[in-house]
Amino acid sequence: MPDRFFSEVPLRPQQLVTLDPQQSHHLLHVLRAELGDEVHLFDGGPDEYLARVVSKDRRSIRLEVVSRIERPAEKSTELLVAAAVPKGDRFRTLIEKLTELGVTAFLPVQSTRTVNPFSTSLRQKAEQWVIEACKQSRRNSLLEILPPMTPDELLFATRHISERYVACAPVDLQVLLGSENSEPSNPPKLDAGDAAGDTILATCRRALLVGPEGGFTTDEVRLVCNAGWRSLSLGQHVLRIETAAMAGAALLVQAEHLPR
Amino acid sequence: MPDRFFSEVPLRPQQLVTLDPQQSHHLLHVLRAELGDEVHLFDGGPDEYLARVVSKDRRSIRLEVVSRIERPAEKSTELLVAAAVPKGDRFRTLIEKLTELGVTAFLPVQSTRTVNPFSTSLRQKAEQWVIEACKQSRRNSLLEILPPMTPDELLFATRHISERYVACAPVDLQVLLGSENSEPSNPPKLDAGDAAGDTILATCRRALLVGPEGGFTTDEVRLVCNAGWRSLSLGQHVLRIETAAMAGAALLVQAEHLPR
Repeated sequence: MPDRFFSEVPLRPQQLVTLDPQQSHHLLHVLRAELGDEVHLFDGGPDEYLARVVSKDRRSIRLEVVSRIERPAEKSTELLVAAAVPKGDRFRTLIEKLTELGVTAFLPVQSTRTVNPFSTSLRQKAEQWVIEACKQSRRNSLLEILPPMTPDELLFATRHISERYVACAPVDLQVLLGSENSEPSNPPKLDAGDAAGDTILATCRRALLVGPEGGFTTDEVRLVCNAGWRSLSLGQHVLRIETAAMAGAALLVQAEHLPR
Repeated sequence: MPDRFFSEVPLRPQQLVTLDPQQSHHLLHVLRAELGDEVHLFDGGPDEYLARVVSKDRRSIRLEVVSRIERPAEKSTELLVAAAVPKGDRFRTLIEKLTELGVTAFLPVQSTRTVNPFSTSLRQKAEQWVIEACKQSRRNSLLEILPPMTPDELLFATRHISERYVACAPVDLQVLLGSENSEPSNPPKLDAGDAAGDTILATCRRALLVGPEGGFTTDEVRLVCNAGWRSLSLGQHVLRIETAAMAGAALLVQAEHLPR
């Protein structure tokens, strides 16, 4: 299959595209592209395009979009994953796997016991990891990286989402959720006139929430339960953030495909 | 929760245990254990034990098992995951996540397009990763790392397993499986008198097979389909080995827990 490159500008047939320096270098000096060579391009939308090298010098390369590639349109999973940011390479693993699995958006949750802050530079790195994972997995739409929220803000911003799950640690959270769920839930009064929320959030039909390594505080658990989130059991063991997020995403995205 | 340590010798109350040098160092010089301090031990069986420090010097530490900890016994998922070995850190991620998810055994598959050989030293590393992941996830039984097999050998060794799935790449394998499945399957004649197979394999009720990055060859796909394995769709995108293995394992282990 031809190599895939990402265009920051939206694509249409006949458009001329200049790749960013890193991708230009890869195409020029690693793949040694010649005039007339064909590659595939994607721009974060659901489609993929055929493009041809029309000019090049030592540093930059120019492509012309030949046509949109006819394929079944990529279907959105409409799944939001909101999780604490795990440390080091584990965050990269998380972002890469959520991209491969087709998750729509990732939202970093800043709860009381969150230890890893979500900086602007981390966000930029995450966006690069998404593009790399899209190239490899042949996904066209990008996993959207949303700005961080506290649990309160998240609950408010996701109040329109119909299927909402909290990934359970087998010990603490499940017990807490179990005891909370046995009481009648009492949804907080939300002001329907508030800002309509982010466009991306509005497209999500399902949400998965994963807490930090230290777990949510009792107050946070109460908040989530009162807002009507259901617990999603992920087995007998204590899962790391990225494992719970990936396993929960695999279940929520793919459960309908499982033969029974 | 107290820290957890692994004992290579089977545990029972009153038994004296000497930890390996690495764990001794951790307990002595990182956690600065004192005589009488309590830790939890596991030996790869389904139970966990309470133990107390009874003697120590600068290099080694001795524990006495006080009691078995009363908890619901750990339930085996009876799931075998057979996959090509991904490169570098991806293999560590795979082993760690399969351990957290509760998978029973991992079997490295050496198919035609497998690029990463499975050496004895890699096996020893993998066994250490399993122990580390067990400590962290509070899993007591170990993920068993089985010796590598070719697809032929695997099909023969797993012929008793009732639920067998191949994780599909959306492009090549699914198409091939689809076309093969439309013909009547023709299971190869197996000699029922052959060796009963590995004890661990005999305990597995479900199996998941994941091919190498380059995909199975057409002959390998035919072999697997003829042996009656079913395709397990994992979405629209091309998944890396470790992603397909983790997502497939999450589905097969946890599907019954998903609220519908």
